[in-house]
Amino acid sequence: MTKQNHKLWLIPTPIGRCKENHVLPEFTLKIIKSLNCFIVEKPQTAISFLKWIDHPTPEYKMTLRVLNKKTPEQEIFSFINLLKEQDVGLMSEAGAPGVADPGARFVALAHDHGFPVVPLVGPSSILLALMASGLNGQNFSFHGYLPIDENKRSAMLKSLESNSIQSGQTQIFMETPHRNLPLFNTLIKQLRPGTKLCIACNLTQPDELILTKRIESWKNAEIPAIQKKPALFLINSF
Amino acid sequence: MTKQNHKLWLIPTPIGRCKENHVLPEFTLKIIKSLNCFIVEKPQTAISFLKWIDHPTPEYKMTLRVLNKKTPEQEIFSFINLLKEQDVGLMSEAGAPGVADPGARFVALAHDHGFPVVPLVGPSSILLALMASGLNGQNFSFHGYLPIDENKRSAMLKSLESNSIQSGQTQIFMETPHRNLPLFNTLIKQLRPGTKLCIACNLTQPDELILTKRIESWKNAEIPAIQKKPALFLINSF
Repeated sequence: MTKQNHKLWLIPTPIGRCKENHVLPEFTLKIIKSLNCFIVEKPQTAISFLKWIDHPTPEYKMTLRVLNKKTPEQEIFSFINLLKEQDVGLMSEAGAPGVADPGARFVALAHDHGFPVVPLVGPSSILLALMASGLNGQNFSFHGYLPIDENKRSAMLKSLESNSIQSGQTQIFMETPHRNLPLFNTLIKQLRPGTKLCIACNLTQPDELILTKRIESWKNAEIPAIQKKPALFLINSF
Repeated sequence: MTKQNHKLWLIPTPIGRCKENHVLPEFTLKIIKSLNCFIVEKPQTAISFLKWIDHPTPEYKMTLRVLNKKTPEQEIFSFINLLKEQDVGLMSEAGAPGVADPGARFVALAHDHGFPVVPLVGPSSILLALMASGLNGQNFSFHGYLPIDENKRSAMLKSLESNSIQSGQTQIFMETPHRNLPLFNTLIKQLRPGTKLCIACNLTQPDELILTKRIESWKNAEIPAIQKKPALFLINSF
């Protein structure tokens, strides 16, 4: 395979609204500002992000292509042509591209074609939540969204909890924000009293909330203000 | 539980030698410079890091306590007294504290005592490797070090691979750097030809190496220069 020159840069973006930049290193900003071609999950968000960092290239001179979960394989394949011409930046809606988003499909193609892939440092809600949870960070698993069907969800939670009892593994999952409170109630009802549950909500924001308690303590605690806010749930039963 | 005022800041540090700062946001630096009390994995590394960022407090005026895998529970418990007096920063040897290091033990205690825990943005080799691997980032698992015993290691690899075939989950693990090449050879020999293996080595360094290939392609490829260098291994068989 021919070694290729142009790079695919993986660009993390803020995981919430922010005025000032608390989350991106200068080097990450410098690289983004040097690029004029981006593959993005949603153009609107990408454009407002590029404006927020004062990207020097006017919008009409930029190349933006959309990669979301509906983008057909063939179209993703055509993005390789962009890499043949120039360095390309890949961004997701929020956080790290290639993690909990559809971006990995293009990263895999870039590898197949021999293009260097360079990850840049920035925020990832999964990683920040794990750091701050105080739960086992030497063995952990991220599962994305739990099944919506109640019986399947219940079975999945049982299996995650017993896996954690056996192996000590921290189990991380999420929910669409407007269903956070129902999920919280299910967790409180279904998990064992001694299981630890961490809720990490609105990370990097002024109203960031990170709490870890055993289920038995959550039962007596105030209901956390997580409804309609982005949150991660982490459990450990070791 | 009384709500406490002082915060436990979780401070990521560079994951390799570097001259210039490519990995820490200004905000993370600002917070570190405002702290004078740190719980660290190894004082020598911590001190040279604080010098590298031009921390304004002279070393003799700083409070440093050591938390490594040998630190007794009782001593970790005594660190809570530090938090009663002031804000405290927690750092690991490299990367994100609380992830693949012993720091989580103190984070858990801080939660138990009602101290706010605030994770700061910085580099994590696990996350950077996952982003750049092109493997499934919607379902993944980190396992730390594989067992050293050959039979146990072999059994573990089989179980990780078959788990990945069933669930699509990306399996992430590591090795002590001087055993990277033997591990690579075991992977090439033992995994299925169609399984994808990503090697992510010397992340964020000038000689960063990130390659993803199927086992059948690795067999014909140059042996990667990973011996004695920090690396992560990621597999997916979906």
